[in-house]
Amino acid sequence: MDIICLNGEFVPLEQARVSATDAGFLLGDGVFETMRVEDGHVLFASDHFVRLSRGLRVLEIPYAVDPEHLLALCEQVVDANELRDARVRLTVTRGPMRNQPIVPHEGEPTLAIAATALDPRAEAVRARGWRIALAPHPRNHRSPLAHVKSVSYLESSLARRHATRLGFDDALLLNTDGLVAETSIANIFHVRDGRVTTPPLSDGPLPGTMRARVRTLCEGIGVECVEASLTVEDLLAADEVFATNALMQVMPVCALGERAIGNGCPGLTTGLLFDAHRAVVDSHLGRRRH
Amino acid sequence: MDIICLNGEFVPLEQARVSATDAGFLLGDGVFETMRVEDGHVLFASDHFVRLSRGLRVLEIPYAVDPEHLLALCEQVVDANELRDARVRLTVTRGPMRNQPIVPHEGEPTLAIAATALDPRAEAVRARGWRIALAPHPRNHRSPLAHVKSVSYLESSLARRHATRLGFDDALLLNTDGLVAETSIANIFHVRDGRVTTPPLSDGPLPGTMRARVRTLCEGIGVECVEASLTVEDLLAADEVFATNALMQVMPVCALGERAIGNGCPGLTTGLLFDAHRAVVDSHLGRRRH
Repeated sequence: MDIICLNGEFVPLEQARVSATDAGFLLGDGVFETMRVEDGHVLFASDHFVRLSRGLRVLEIPYAVDPEHLLALCEQVVDANELRDARVRLTVTRGPMRNQPIVPHEGEPTLAIAATALDPRAEAVRARGWRIALAPHPRNHRSPLAHVKSVSYLESSLARRHATRLGFDDALLLNTDGLVAETSIANIFHVRDGRVTTPPLSDGPLPGTMRARVRTLCEGIGVECVEASLTVEDLLAADEVFATNALMQVMPVCALGERAIGNGCPGLTTGLLFDAHRAVVDSHLGRRRH
Repeated sequence: MDIICLNGEFVPLEQARVSATDAGFLLGDGVFETMRVEDGHVLFASDHFVRLSRGLRVLEIPYAVDPEHLLALCEQVVDANELRDARVRLTVTRGPMRNQPIVPHEGEPTLAIAATALDPRAEAVRARGWRIALAPHPRNHRSPLAHVKSVSYLESSLARRHATRLGFDDALLLNTDGLVAETSIANIFHVRDGRVTTPPLSDGPLPGTMRARVRTLCEGIGVECVEASLTVEDLLAADEVFATNALMQVMPVCALGERAIGNGCPGLTTGLLFDAHRAVVDSHLGRRRH
């Protein structure tokens, strides 16, 4: 049975219910994190909690993040669902509202934590690489929400639905100036002439936890990593493109629309970065490397 | 006690609960309408249900709008709360999801209808007129959500919170091209030299039900009404500015930031349009006009 942690209590899924006046439900007024769990441990939990705190500050939701407490709850949810490797989604909303649905209520925020199994197809997808489609609408990189993983996620969801319906793995969102921002669920990187480039935060990507790790991983394999604006033409002219998020980690991108990127296969640098990341994860988990 | 209609059942507020996996709660994946009720009757209900249906189509939420059924539920919620004049908020989300929070679940959508008393300060505010502040971020007029009243409302909520904290009544959102789109909760109109102008939908305003009525009201009082792009400078140079939504109906806007609009008082045309609208409402309700 699925168990959800709701405001600190562990309840079966069908009893995990929030108020129909919750600001998350009524106005998308909340933030979330999606974390990768291996061997029962949340990976890079503190990166997620730092971003969670920042998002709560932008939204002015009065919820004090206690990293140790949240980490314990996340890992307990994983255990309660009898999982070892999992995705954990942690959501904090402004909580129930009364009377004036548009005005923030200064009540108790809602905390919900759910754990599900990792996508069993992930490694097969990584082996062939992603194919992404251009989203039919831009991302507003000048919104304060561009850098917040907020529950008001519909613009990205619509882009993703559009792409997956056409048979693609995800949608590439440009910003309103026509520059590459991110995909609906991942940051995007371009590799050319041995240099790794990702759009600066000012171009509208979410500050991904995995995005931030890529710089260090690049240092480790002796590859330069810079932030610079990218266009669709840059991606099409790349030697390699890859996408990152906490769950997929490093995902090769082999096609944009009907156009192959590079030779149309997962790239060498992409593979090296994924391996380097796995070495970091194994080291964190105290595993011996093969 | 507050009664909410949840999926067709009437339940006390504290028992009105939705799944913690509801797509509305997790991803802002739903649409809503806010309606004005007088004497127990929802005003212009069919306008709202048409827009609701359109939004559900954009989001591909498989909920078939039955206007008569929804109208009956809305009016029953008002009765159950022992109200005569009220605001009714009707929300439809994609409903509970399982396992892959990012992938739409093809289950049952969630329907929630709540009724609260109308804001008792509304007439006092109308008498002095709104003061609005420029929002610190733009609205993405090229998003498919620009024309959908979606639960992913946070960008507007943040603008509103910014403005109200500074003591203003609402925030004016420009689009990403720098043109006037709307306020966080209302459409915006400009009156100059006896002509009424409002931004076209391509500039990013929500297609307000009250916005659509203004054209007919203008005809009734013999004033030309056009759609054309507006700048902040246009608003500051206007004889009058007013804002419309279903709840406030026609609200004078007397200042933008620290600058007065016109003579800083509610305008004549604005007043005539409000009176003309009230005559329509009275006629709909079978009231005799004074």
